[in-house]
Parts: sequence; structure tokens; C-alpha cells
Amino acid sequence: MEYIEETAAPSPTGGSPVSVEFRVDPARYRHWRVDYDGPVATVTMDTDEHGGLVPGYELKLNSYDLGVDIELYDITQRLRFEHPEVAAVVLTSGKDKIFCAGANIRMLAASPHHHKVNFCKFTNETRNGIEDATANSGQTWIAALNGTASGGGYELALACEHIMLVDDRSSAVSLPELPLLGVLPGTGGLTRVVDKRHVRRDLADYFSTRPEGVIGKKAAAWRLVDEVVPRTAWDQTVTARARERAATSPRPADGPGVTLTPLAKDRSADAIRYRYVEAKLDPTRGVAEITIEGPHSDPPTNTEGLHAQGDQFWTLAMTRELDDLILDLRTNEPELGTWVLHTKGDPQKVLAHDRLLCDSANDNPGKPNDNPGKPNDNPGKPGDTSTDWLAREITSYLKRTLKRLDVTSRSLIALIEPGSCFAGSLLELALAADRSFQLAGTREEDDPDTEPATITIGKMNLGPLPMGNGLTRLQTRFLGDDKALAEADQHQDEKLQAEDAEQLGLVTFAPDDIDWADEVRIAIEERASFSPDALSGLEANYRFAGPETLETKIFGRLSAWQNWIFTRPNASGPDGALRKFGTGQRADFDRKRV
Amino acid sequence: MEYIEETAAPSPTGGSPVSVEFRVDPARYRHWRVDYDGPVATVTMDTDEHGGLVPGYELKLNSYDLGVDIELYDITQRLRFEHPEVAAVVLTSGKDKIFCAGANIRMLAASPHHHKVNFCKFTNETRNGIEDATANSGQTWIAALNGTASGGGYELALACEHIMLVDDRSSAVSLPELPLLGVLPGTGGLTRVVDKRHVRRDLADYFSTRPEGVIGKKAAAWRLVDEVVPRTAWDQTVTARARERAATSPRPADGPGVTLTPLAKDRSADAIRYRYVEAKLDPTRGVAEITIEGPHSDPPTNTEGLHAQGDQFWTLAMTRELDDLILDLRTNEPELGTWVLHTKGDPQKVLAHDRLLCDSANDNPGKPNDNPGKPNDNPGKPGDTSTDWLAREITSYLKRTLKRLDVTSRSLIALIEPGSCFAGSLLELALAADRSFQLAGTREEDDPDTEPATITIGKMNLGPLPMGNGLTRLQTRFLGDDKALAEADQHQDEKLQAEDAEQLGLVTFAPDDIDWADEVRIAIEERASFSPDALSGLEANYRFAGPETLETKIFGRLSAWQNWIFTRPNASGPDGALRKFGTGQRADFDRKRV
Repeated sequence: MEYIEETAAPSPTGGSPVSVEFRVDPARYRHWRVDYDGPVATVTMDTDEHGGLVPGYELKLNSYDLGVDIELYDITQRLRFEHPEVAAVVLTSGKDKIFCAGANIRMLAASPHHHKVNFCKFTNETRNGIEDATANSGQTWIAALNGTASGGGYELALACEHIMLVDDRSSAVSLPELPLLGVLPGTGGLTRVVDKRHVRRDLADYFSTRPEGVIGKKAAAWRLVDEVVPRTAWDQTVTARARERAATSPRPADGPGVTLTPLAKDRSADAIRYRYVEAKLDPTRGVAEITIEGPHSDPPTNTEGLHAQGDQFWTLAMTRELDDLILDLRTNEPELGTWVLHTKGDPQKVLAHDRLLCDSANDNPGKPNDNPGKPNDNPGKPGDTSTDWLAREITSYLKRTLKRLDVTSRSLIALIEPGSCFAGSLLELALAADRSFQLAGTREEDDPDTEPATITIGKMNLGPLPMGNGLTRLQTRFLGDDKALAEADQHQDEKLQAEDAEQLGLVTFAPDDIDWADEVRIAIEERASFSPDALSGLEANYRFAGPETLETKIFGRLSAWQNWIFTRPNASGPDGALRKFGTGQRADFDRKRV
Repeated sequence: MEYIEETAAPSPTGGSPVSVEFRVDPARYRHWRVDYDGPVATVTMDTDEHGGLVPGYELKLNSYDLGVDIELYDITQRLRFEHPEVAAVVLTSGKDKIFCAGANIRMLAASPHHHKVNFCKFTNETRNGIEDATANSGQTWIAALNGTASGGGYELALACEHIMLVDDRSSAVSLPELPLLGVLPGTGGLTRVVDKRHVRRDLADYFSTRPEGVIGKKAAAWRLVDEVVPRTAWDQTVTARARERAATSPRPADGPGVTLTPLAKDRSADAIRYRYVEAKLDPTRGVAEITIEGPHSDPPTNTEGLHAQGDQFWTLAMTRELDDLILDLRTNEPELGTWVLHTKGDPQKVLAHDRLLCDSANDNPGKPNDNPGKPNDNPGKPGDTSTDWLAREITSYLKRTLKRLDVTSRSLIALIEPGSCFAGSLLELALAADRSFQLAGTREEDDPDTEPATITIGKMNLGPLPMGNGLTRLQTRFLGDDKALAEADQHQDEKLQAEDAEQLGLVTFAPDDIDWADEVRIAIEERASFSPDALSGLEANYRFAGPETLETKIFGRLSAWQNWIFTRPNASGPDGALRKFGTGQRADFDRKRV
């Protein structure tokens, strides 16, 4: 029972049958403009008040809903793939006096709990992607706050590497969620303020209770922004900063980029189909059966061939499809609580594609991560041509998409059967799963020359695809057991049948034909019988053993607190702060602390 | 609105006016026995079914409620202070076939949300204290599971350094919370399984969905326990392990211990008074005004004098009082959402007591913590007499009590005024606060020779009292700003007046007499007007910047998830799993994932 769902207010997804589409056509952006000037792109937020995803609220003051964020995500992706020449990105506002007012309150107040949580998750992922572009892609984001950045608007700025605030005696940065709405700045704000920007905790506390925020020099002195600039010098200083950052980037100035052509997708009530990825939806069992096909042919022989294939290169094409599928299922199919992961194809072709990427990106993928807690990517030095930007971008995109899987509130079960290709990059799916089953031997009804299912560890499993905790999935799996990790590493490039894989600890169970059907059926049925909330909590805790990073803190600690607060009557109840906002009435709080 | 509170079920605190008392007399333990055999103590859990804190449930199968845990906490404290000769502690059960069945379900189902959260917090703190005794006090805890340890029972075992399970084909370890109750093993279980014991995450997932758990050799193979022992060899092997562990302890074999005499306390509806600590309760403002008095006299001149004073030594006496006050207020006064912290006395006497402790404990308190994420305590080597056990115990107890303050869901505001003694160990109170105010200058009405308020950094601020994140409060405050940290360190032992303290970043605000009253009043009133839930979330995020440890993961990540799940109808609603447990009916889940 959700307080919110009981009202007649419009419900973005969840209550009503609105289906959210994550594919967007840049020609039809409603809320953003992108302008290019050599190595600098300027991304301007200018929301269309009447362009909300569902009716019932107006996107005033550059406030946003999921639809606005979907466009921003598309922009971040196209900047990376279509614009290799862009080395610095200026994020600014097209409105007067306001940079961005954060998430739209009426939208939040009208949304069911699972939509709020999902929306925050996607928002977080896009912001982490902005930080990833700065850290690993040589594309540095600069927030040019030409007006007030409040709540989620300031949190968006916090994801940028450098924050500039216009010094006009009124433009402020603020986190008014707590005093005005009784919720948290839950999309990274609290974490980034103290852990990334190192604002002193007592000043951060004070700042987060002032609805009006902090302006001018004090904002800089408290490290809430990096610099304040008078309006007279604004344009010139913003351009100068962007040029400075761009000058240190290793991205190639001469492109050409790879166009992300429209993604072909066939969606019905019971299936979602792309070229390499397919999901069968089974509401009765509460299951999505997801199958990912390996490459249909060998990869090109060199980096030039990779560029020639562009977005048709298998890894990129498959990753785009998987990315869209994850977002679609998470948002539109909240009752499919278990995702069963299958693969189909030739493991050697997967590994060959992986090798081309690793060799082209030349990033020592075999090197263990010496600095847990930080991803071991390295964007290279300016002018370094030994590393191919496109190979790096594809790998990094796969990394981000697998991270999306890690933070997905669904039980993940991988089934490794004859004909599958859980090798290298696709083995990560099984390593991301909460449990995996690998069939020992073949099935009675199989063709006599059917080969038993195998898994193969490749270069991609040993570095280029770290989780949010900075470790590879293998390192996380064998946390504190260096011997088991070393042993698994030694079997790189070997086809491992079920018994060996189980013995090495790479799969959970290895039933034979006699037990397979029952074991798998029971595991899936059982999962559907458990509390979905408890499963989300269990999975969020078990998936991220080991070191904590800004990213795991945001998804683990901050999001969990925000989820809790969202469910509390003090926020979402009929007299809660979210519902009372803008009514002129005060929220009526149960004052008990926990 | 709590689902639970609407029922007629008995409500431990919260709904009903039951006041929980944390002081216990060992002679009247109802649920535990402690037996001493030289360096080994055996702590036996044998709950009195009819000894619940409130009526309405029976403590069958060694299940526990807050009352059982209060006795266990008392035991851990007395073992450390009264029994220096105890170097290993065996934790076992006095019941047949069952070690401990975890938290009592009927108690949980009948408890209001804030009681559940508070109860879990205290339980966590006691378990962290057990780990602290093992790590820093040379008192190693061994779990001797002579029967099934289930749920919170297994979580209790997880806090021990070594887990032994009897191999009798029926005794199991299990975490049945998720499958049976729709909640999490939320008192450290999920975190310790993967992060401390390094159980592989997929096996951990499987284990946590099996209500019957895992027995025998498989439990050891999966690292859920350290060893399994046949019943025939049980007593002998347990004794052997305890003796082995005891042999490596630096604790003195010859005592004598320091008796923790009954704590004098005067409690009324509007005040709680001890010798050095006092709290005035103001429900109208939602405030507890807490005053801690410094030592009334100089400390003894040497370690022998410290032992002679025993539990009357100021630091120990004050810490016991503060500890009891924190527990009392947290549990019995949930609506006092702001704690205002005052001190009173001579800063030099505080610093002198600190120095005696630091010099006696001889643990290089000035040395910065080179290994953030781990406390920089070092219990010393066996036979090392350069470090005094009692000085170490007192310091460690103060450390744990200040950590209790850090995880307390109340806004903490420190007021530094003339006549106060925020120096050294008591300065930690101001550093633990969410905000601090130091009066600049004196007050108009003050005596002309009144000295302005000062704060002083002492040895105690530079190492011996780390937070749960492994950093000192100063290190956490100046996270990422080594220059500010070094500058503060340089002012060690200087009396810092308001302007200097503010400039060094050691206090938040330094208003003068003209502004003081209004600024402080507004800060406190404002705090009382905010959502208590949002404040809890804000404080939990801002107080623990920097590295994460097992401890911060448990309080930050795991507890937040558990809180969320507790509030969800799937657990606590009329058809939720907690309410349906034992009725023979299945919970009716809303299947939406978030």
C-alpha cells in the first residue's frame, strides 16, 4: 500500500499503464540544446514546461522529471561516441536566473515509491557517467551555474569536475530538500558534498538546512563551488576554463565519431527483441528470460576495421541493446522480480571481439587493480595515440552497463547451458548474477556431438570492467581469498566445464541433466515467493563486498536512507512534507527519532 | 502512523510508558551465566522464557529482546574491567540443541518502528564491542555453537573471532530472516558474512534463502564457521581453542580488576542526574540539555593512583554516566530530537586526566593513523608491561561511548561558553556534534574577570579515540584538507578563543554576546521543525565521510536497508511477513521491485 497510489494524482508508470521509452531522437529533444565549438561542447538545459513525461505537473524553473533525464543521458552517450573532438563540456542553463531547480516536486509527490526509487537510480547513473567521462574519457564536465542551482540541480553540478557560480548577489547553490520537503538530497548530494568536495561536515550540515542556500564568495570559501565569477566576466571565464581543461585531454581532435543510429526494438506485452538481445516476459512466474547472443561473425582484424563497423560492431551494438533493455525492464516491469540470464553463440567469437578491444585500447587489462577503490582506467596522456579512443569508449560503456546490472533491484540468475557463450565480457553476466547454474555434461536429448557448456575467463574479466567498488567481479567474488583468485586467473582462456568451474568457485551450482530442471525451477519459484523488499536489501548488501567508493556509498548508503525516508509518513503520508509542499500548510511530523 | 502501533499488542516503549533501564545488577541476571576458569570465561546464554522486558511474548529457544541484550552488554563491560585475567571468552548456550534463535519475532512484530531500529542499533553496538574486545583488549571471543544458531543468534556468533559448530547432523547456522520474515539479517549479518568471513557472495545468497541453514562440513567449507567438531570431542576442543587464544593475549594474569559499582542515577520526568553528567529534558522544545562536568580535582600522579581510584577515576566514572544517559535518552525519549551539549569545569584538569591515561596506556596517541579504515589501537604483545591495561580499557570505553554518540539519531549541537571545558577528551563532544557554537568574548553580565570560552586540542584528539570509520574526529572533519589538519594539530595544548577556533575550522560559528542567544535559539528551534527522518538520514551521511569499515557499513548501509524494509508493508503491514509469521498463513506481498 502506497499513500501516493491511493490518490487520483497521475502516476508516472506504476499505477497507470504509461510505458517509458528510453530511446530518444536528438532531433526531438524538448529540454536540452547542445552547441559545438571545436573541443568544447555546451549543453544547455532549457526545459519545456509542458514537456513532462505524464500530465499533472509543469517543469518550471528547469525542474526535471525522468523524461528530462533520459535526454541528458542520451547527450552524454552521443558526446562520447559521436564527438571524439569534444574534450570539455560546459553544462549551463538557458533560463534567466535559474540553473536548475532539481527534480519536480509535484512529479515526486504524485509518484509511487518504486518510481521514485527507480528515477533516483537512473539519475544517479547518469551523474556517475558524467564523472566517468571526466575521469576516464578525457571529456571534462564543467558546471557553469549562471543562476541558482537548487536541490537536484546542485547535485547535477556536483557531478561535474569544476563548478563555477555567477556572482550576482542572488544566484545560489542550495540543498533545500530537508527543510522544504522532508527528504534527502538523495542523488549523490550528501555524499559528494563531504566525500568529493570535502566541504566540512558542520558547514555541510548548516548549508543543507538553509532553503535559500549560499551565494557568492562564501560558496567558494566553503568549497561548495570552485570559483565565483562576476557576470561581466562570465562568458569569457567559462570559455577560458573549458579551453584549459580541453587542452589536457587525450581525445583526438580530428575524429571522426561513430554515429549511434536508432536502435531497432520490437516490444510487445510478452517480449522485447533487439538484434542480439531478447527478453521474454513471464508475469505469471515474475520472470524475464533474457538471452544475449554472441557475435555472428569474426571481428575485424584491426582497429581501423573496428572504426569502420562503428555502432554495428558487436560489443557496442549488444551493449546498447542490453542498456536499453535494463532500463526498460527496471522502469516498466517492476513485477518481474527475477531476471534469468542466458547467452547463445560462439565463445571464441566473443573472446576475439574482446581481444580486439583490449589490444586497441591497450590498457594493460591483465594488470590487477593495485588501487582498490579507484577504477584502474587511465585515459592516457594528451597526444598519446597508442590507445584507441573508440575501443576505450566501447569498453567503458560496457563497464557502465554492467554496473547498471549490479545496482538493479532484481534477482539475477545465470544459466550456463550447451550452446551458450559465457566467455570474457559475457562471463561478466554470470559473475554479476546472484547465483549461476552450469549444466554438467549434456542432456539426454542432445545431439551426440553436442559439447558440454563451458565458461572462459578472458582479458575482459581481469581489469577493464570494474564494478562500482573499484574491483573486478572476480576480485569481489574472491574477496579475501587471494589463492582462489590466483587459481582462477591461471585458467585464463581455458574452456571450463561445469565440474571444473564449480570447483574453482566460478559458478554456484553444477547440476547434471537429471537435477537441472528441478533445481533451476525451484530456485526461480522460491525467489518469486520471497519479499521483494528484503531481496533488494539482501542483494544490495551481498553484491558490493569490499572497498567502498563514492559510487557504492551513493547507491548503498545514501539511496537506502532516501528509500527509507520516502516510505515514511513524514515525507509521503497525507500530512507529510512532500504532499504539503506548496499548499501553504505545514507538514505534521511524527517527532519520534529512531 | 505505524501499522504496529495500531494494534493492541504490547509495545516495548514507544506506545506504552514502559521505561527501559540499562543499569543491571549481575546478581540478578535472568538470561546469562558467566563462569570463570583462569584466563577463560564462559558466557552461557540461557534465556528465561518468562523474562521478557514487557509481557506478550516468551523468550523461547534462547531468543532475545532488548532486556537479554542489556545483560550481555553488562557482561562484556565487566569482563573488560573486572576481569583483567580473562584473555578468552567462550560464548555458548545452556539449552539443548539450540545456541540462539535470534531476536524474538513476536517482540519484533509488536514493536513500533523506532523501537525496532533502536533495538538493532544497541545490539549492533554490543557486537561491535565484542569485536573491539578481541581486537584491542586481548580478550578474544569464541562462539561455541553447541546447537543451532539462527538469525540474530548466528549474527551474534559472527561477532566472535572464531566460530565452532557441533557436528551432530542437526545443529546448523542459518539466516532465515529473508525467507521466513521478509526482513534482513540486519544486525551485522549480511556485512560480516561477505566482508569479514569472506563467504563467496553467491553461496552467501543461497545460504540466506535457506530457512534451515547449513550444517556440518559444508558450513566450514563455505567459511560460515571456522571448524566443526564432533560432540564427543566438543568440550575438550572448545577448552583447547580458548586456551590457545588466551596464550597470545597481553592481558595481565594477576589483576586485580576494577569493580564497576552501581551507578547512582536520579531520574525524573524532566531530568536525569548522575555525579558528572546531567540532562534536562524539555519536551516542549524537543531538546535534552546535557551537561558534562570535568574532574573536580587533579588526577593521581601515576598509574598506581589510577588503579587505586578504580571506577571513581573521573574519565571512567563520567564515561559510564554518559553511556547510560545516551542509552536512556535514545530508548526512552524518542521525541527529544536535539541534544545540546554543554561542559563545565577546568579544562586543565580534563587534559591532566587525559595525559595520565595516554602516558599509562603508552600508545603513541600523537601518531597519526597511517591505516585509515582500521583503528590504530594495538593491544600490545604478550608480557608487554609498558602499557597499562586499565588505562587502555578506560580510553577504549570512552572511544566506544563517543562512537555511540556518532551513530545516535539525534541532532547534536555543542555550546562552548565561559566556564566550559571542551578540552581533549571532552573536545570530542564538540567535534562529534553536527554544529558547534563558541561564544566570542564574554557576556555583558559576566564578572569582569571571567575568561572567554576556549577549546583545547590535546593528545586524546589525535589518535586514541577514532570514529567507526577509523579516522579521528579531526581527520574526518578535515577530510581531504591536510593543510587545515596540520594547522590544527600545531595548536595542540593551546587555549583557543572563539575567533581562532573558528578560523582554524574547529567550531562552526563564533557569535558574540549580542548574537549568541538568537543564533542558538534559532538553530535549535529550526532543528525541531524539520522532519526527524530526514535529519536522521542527513546526519548519518554527513557524520561518516571518508573510508568505510565493517562498522560504518553496518550502521550506514545495512541498517538503512533494514530500516527501509521494516517500514514496508511487505514486512510490517497487516499482511506482511512479520505479522503473518507463525499464523500458518502466507504473507501477501506487493511484488513491485524498486
